[in-house]
Amino acid sequence: MPHPASDSTPDFERCRIEDGEGWGKLSVDRILDHRYIQIEEIRYCTPAREKPVDWTVARRKSAVAVAPMLEDGRFLLIQQERYPIQRTIWEFPAGQIDDVENKADREVILNTVHSELDEETGHQLAPDGELIPLGYFFSSQGFSDEHVYLFLAKTVIPNGMGPSPDDGESILACRAVTADELRDEIASNRIVDANTLALYARLCACGIIN
Amino acid sequence: MPHPASDSTPDFERCRIEDGEGWGKLSVDRILDHRYIQIEEIRYCTPAREKPVDWTVARRKSAVAVAPMLEDGRFLLIQQERYPIQRTIWEFPAGQIDDVENKADREVILNTVHSELDEETGHQLAPDGELIPLGYFFSSQGFSDEHVYLFLAKTVIPNGMGPSPDDGESILACRAVTADELRDEIASNRIVDANTLALYARLCACGIIN
Repeated sequence: MPHPASDSTPDFERCRIEDGEGWGKLSVDRILDHRYIQIEEIRYCTPAREKPVDWTVARRKSAVAVAPMLEDGRFLLIQQERYPIQRTIWEFPAGQIDDVENKADREVILNTVHSELDEETGHQLAPDGELIPLGYFFSSQGFSDEHVYLFLAKTVIPNGMGPSPDDGESILACRAVTADELRDEIASNRIVDANTLALYARLCACGIIN
Repeated sequence: MPHPASDSTPDFERCRIEDGEGWGKLSVDRILDHRYIQIEEIRYCTPAREKPVDWTVARRKSAVAVAPMLEDGRFLLIQQERYPIQRTIWEFPAGQIDDVENKADREVILNTVHSELDEETGHQLAPDGELIPLGYFFSSQGFSDEHVYLFLAKTVIPNGMGPSPDDGESILACRAVTADELRDEIASNRIVDANTLALYARLCACGIIN
C-alpha cells in the first residue's frame, strides 16, 4: 500500500557506498548469485593501504526499522519468529526495501516505513504525525553492505484493520511498552536484535529517551 | 596472545541457537561452503507455524565487541577501513571468535575480548579492571545466525607495545572520547556500525552512561 511522503517530513542522510576518495573495486568475482543474497570476492583499493586487499562480501538489500510511538509516549514492539536464530523475539518493526533500483530514493524509503508499520503493527502515522529520521547503520560492516534506515514514527494510531503480515513472516503479537520498560528489556538482554538496539541508541543519543 | 579469564569476571549469558521448544530443522541444503561464510537453505518447523517454512540463512562465526573505558571515564574508539561499505569509520574494537568448536565457551569468549583490545587499541585491562558483560545481539536476525557478545572493559591501560592489528585489517588510529562526545557522534550519524550502537544502547540502558 503506497503512502505519499508528507512534504513536512524532514530530509535525511541517504547511505551511499561508492567508489571515490581512494576507494575502488579492482575486480569482482560473484561466487553466489541467489535470490536473497549475492556473495562476491572483491579486490579493493583503499585510501590507506599500499596494496589491494581481497575480501568476501555479502550483498544484501537495504532495509528500514522504525520505533512507533503512541500518543501516550509508549512504543510498539512486535513479537516475531526469526528462523535463522530459532527464536521468537520482541523487536521494533522492520523490513527490506524491495525496490532495489531506487533503494536510496527518499520516497521509496519512506513508503517502506509506512508499509512495515501498517503490515506489522496494524498502525499508521497519525494525521499530524511525522517520520523523524534517525540516521542509518550497517549491520555487519566487515562482511556485508547491508544497511538499515532508522526512524521514529511520532505518533501512530490504529489503522482500523489490524496487521497484515507477509505469508513468509510469522508475527505473533504487538504490544506497547513505556520507555522504562523498553530500557529494562534492553538492559536485561531480552531485546537482542541490532535494529532495536540501534534505534534505542539513537533515541537516547538524540535525547528523545532520557 | 591468550589471557587467562579472571576469576572475578562476572559470568554472562551464553547465546544458544538450538532445536527444542517447537523449533527444529527438517532439512538443510548447503548452497555455499566458503572459508568465511556458509549459505544454507533450511526448512524449519517453528512453534507457531502450522506448516514448515523455507529460509535462506548465512552462517557466520560469532564475535565480540568491547567498549574500553579509561580511568578518566573516556572511551576508546578505533578508526578502521571497512571494505564492504567502502568507508573508514570510528567504532569500538571488535573481532570474530576463531575457535568455532568452542565458540560459546566462557574462556574462549573472554580471551577474544582481551586479544581484540590488545591488538586493535594497544591497551589491556588494568590489574584491578574487569570485563563487564553486556549481553549479546544478533546483527541481522532475518538473515544470519551471527551474534556478537558485548562487554565493557573497565578500566584499560596502555599495553606498552601499541596496537598489533592483523595483516588483512586496516586500523588507522585510536582515540579517546568522553561520553558526551560519544553521544554526539551517535546522534549525528557519524557512528554507524551495529556493534558500537548496540554497546551504546546497553551502556545507556544499564545506567553506565547517562
